[in-house]
Amino acid sequence: MKARVHVMLKNGVLDPQGEAVRHALGSLGFAGVEGVRQGKVIELDLAEGTSEDTVKEMCEKLLANTVIESYSVEMV
Amino acid sequence: MKARVHVMLKNGVLDPQGEAVRHALGSLGFAGVEGVRQGKVIELDLAEGTSEDTVKEMCEKLLANTVIESYSVEMV
Repeated sequence: MKARVHVMLKNGVLDPQGEAVRHALGSLGFAGVEGVRQGKVIELDLAEGTSEDTVKEMCEKLLANTVIESYSVEMV
Repeated sequence: MKARVHVMLKNGVLDPQGEAVRHALGSLGFAGVEGVRQGKVIELDLAEGTSEDTVKEMCEKLLANTVIESYSVEMV
């Protein structure tokens, strides 16, 4: 079974990487890009029977820095 | 309107970052993590009327390195 975890910077936390992408898109001539936020996606290949709670524990302990990042877990 | 772009390393391309996460999860006592792939997620805040094709062009030109990465676009 698989799980997909999205880790994004929380709103209000400055995202220089996203800002750089926004700027670069403007330089390339793409108009109308009003904001860009960049985050991580982590695809986990798990043994059968692993619960969503276990994946959330992985997020809390390793995958996300919960001070500045929020995460969401999706079992697929 | 918003678009979400997922950029992942193609299958067969070595993913040392994902491998490091897999190893770290094992060290933390999480059993049954068989594989981890890490990618990027980019959330774009776009002007109304921007087409999916435009976002795909952004991916081809900037957001993804199509030699080693694949991308998917989702309009939300």
